[in-house]
Amino acid sequence: MSSGWSVGLDIGGTKVHGVLLDPTSTVRGTLRAATISGTAGVVASATRVVRELCGAAGINPADLTGVGVGVPGLVDPRSGSVSHAVNLGMDVSAVPLGPLLAVALGGVPIGVENDVNVAALGAAHLLAPTDDLAYLALGTGVAAGFVLDGRLRRGFLGGAGEIGHVIYQPAGPLCACGQHGCLELYASGSALDAAWPISVGQRASQGVFEAAAAGDASAVAVRDPFVDAVAAAVRLIVLTYDVERVVLGGGVAEIGEPLLGAVRGVLRRQADGSGLLRSLQMADRVQLVPSGAPVAPVGAALAARSKV
Amino acid sequence: MSSGWSVGLDIGGTKVHGVLLDPTSTVRGTLRAATISGTAGVVASATRVVRELCGAAGINPADLTGVGVGVPGLVDPRSGSVSHAVNLGMDVSAVPLGPLLAVALGGVPIGVENDVNVAALGAAHLLAPTDDLAYLALGTGVAAGFVLDGRLRRGFLGGAGEIGHVIYQPAGPLCACGQHGCLELYASGSALDAAWPISVGQRASQGVFEAAAAGDASAVAVRDPFVDAVAAAVRLIVLTYDVERVVLGGGVAEIGEPLLGAVRGVLRRQADGSGLLRSLQMADRVQLVPSGAPVAPVGAALAARSKV
Repeated sequence: MSSGWSVGLDIGGTKVHGVLLDPTSTVRGTLRAATISGTAGVVASATRVVRELCGAAGINPADLTGVGVGVPGLVDPRSGSVSHAVNLGMDVSAVPLGPLLAVALGGVPIGVENDVNVAALGAAHLLAPTDDLAYLALGTGVAAGFVLDGRLRRGFLGGAGEIGHVIYQPAGPLCACGQHGCLELYASGSALDAAWPISVGQRASQGVFEAAAAGDASAVAVRDPFVDAVAAAVRLIVLTYDVERVVLGGGVAEIGEPLLGAVRGVLRRQADGSGLLRSLQMADRVQLVPSGAPVAPVGAALAARSKV
Repeated sequence: MSSGWSVGLDIGGTKVHGVLLDPTSTVRGTLRAATISGTAGVVASATRVVRELCGAAGINPADLTGVGVGVPGLVDPRSGSVSHAVNLGMDVSAVPLGPLLAVALGGVPIGVENDVNVAALGAAHLLAPTDDLAYLALGTGVAAGFVLDGRLRRGFLGGAGEIGHVIYQPAGPLCACGQHGCLELYASGSALDAAWPISVGQRASQGVFEAAAAGDASAVAVRDPFVDAVAAAVRLIVLTYDVERVVLGGGVAEIGEPLLGAVRGVLRRQADGSGLLRSLQMADRVQLVPSGAPVAPVGAALAARSKV
């Protein structure tokens, strides 16, 4: 019996982040739990979060309308299988994650999607009435998810939004993908971490922006090229997709307003020198993902429900 | 009285190319005529082509279900107005081309679209059953039109597919858009023309490929970087949109198989060094627009009809 309630999970390498949505799509519970690596571990971690979210709300998991799961890696949304989810310890092809979770949860309909795609869906829901946006995930890598005129753009092979591997500096260093100078070598959280020594208890991303704001020249020398690269990602997204909004997300977005202000500054300066860029009003389209908003798990829940 | 017949026009700087479609979307007439510059001239040229196509088929233009028009420049498809169509001598904002043509043709419904967008729609129709593709226009500039899961992607400001102004060589020369090293400085027909002396009666684009094939080192030195840039455009399109097909069109596509073979060669070599690129199977997705196929006017007619 379907209750209209659903659960969304964002399964990352360290944590499973879950939300419980009521029939009106309001978040009625959230939970984070450690991810156990490997296929069996991922299924156990996910199942546990679903059961605990339901238990706290007095709902039988078997009555859920659906459970949606966002995972890193290449996803076949029809079969619910996942390939190359290296961060989850599932470094093989076609793990049938959807069917395994369905069995573990007593037959509840399961939807599996790429994690950046569900974040884009969640951002579109939480930032409504916008239904045309890119979610730019700046984390370990750089990728984007797209909701276009209200529809998720997955792509023919599920590869839409792999913008981290568009070449940014042709003379740049070798990327793990085999190309040189890929955008994610410059615009990712990992790139920022690698370029700045971390103090205990502080994230590199925030430390470098604080030090740069305080006038530290070596921090400015790290921050400015990083901001240029993020602005290049925004330009790339607008020049190709012309989405109404570009939402900055991922770990780097936790820098908050200093990041947004710096990216907008670069976009405005470039627009000053280019009629084309000026006409595209890029600085006005960029925004931060709302701080603490569970975009990915909410998007996962919505994706699962839309499938049922 | 609507007959189910429609006319599509591709209005370029030198020629208006028109087709007459019957109710089954079969081409029943084609015509090319010179474009007269300026708003009044464009309306007169377009009206003449519509009347002559209808006259030859014994149809009253007032009975057409719709007339679709593809034009270079920024188009507002709702109002039918066109901005910055410099090549048509309409270098101003918001020329109400749709309403003007409607009056000139006795009230026939008019649809106005960007020329690259209608070419993408026409390519999707002529290459059916593909309904997910990019049309990569390699002409005076470089731009792409996108049909995604059967729907045209215009973008929020009608700017989707402005990939010619994604930066390809950060240290490159100044582009007319105000940025440096834009992709269209390397992958356009104009770029090829500028780099190769033209013999009388021969297009630069074909001349350089023929000379390079015959072993002319200076031609190879022009051809190879050009092909690399076209391949970069294809990679950019697949990494961002992951469309099922990328159709090479525009004047440069008249080079034909030598161009396609060279672009596929570059994509295959790059895939050899990159698991990511290999998994995306780019070489297999690229194809030429069918030689002589009137993709843009057919797409314009279909766009108009879908609007009625």
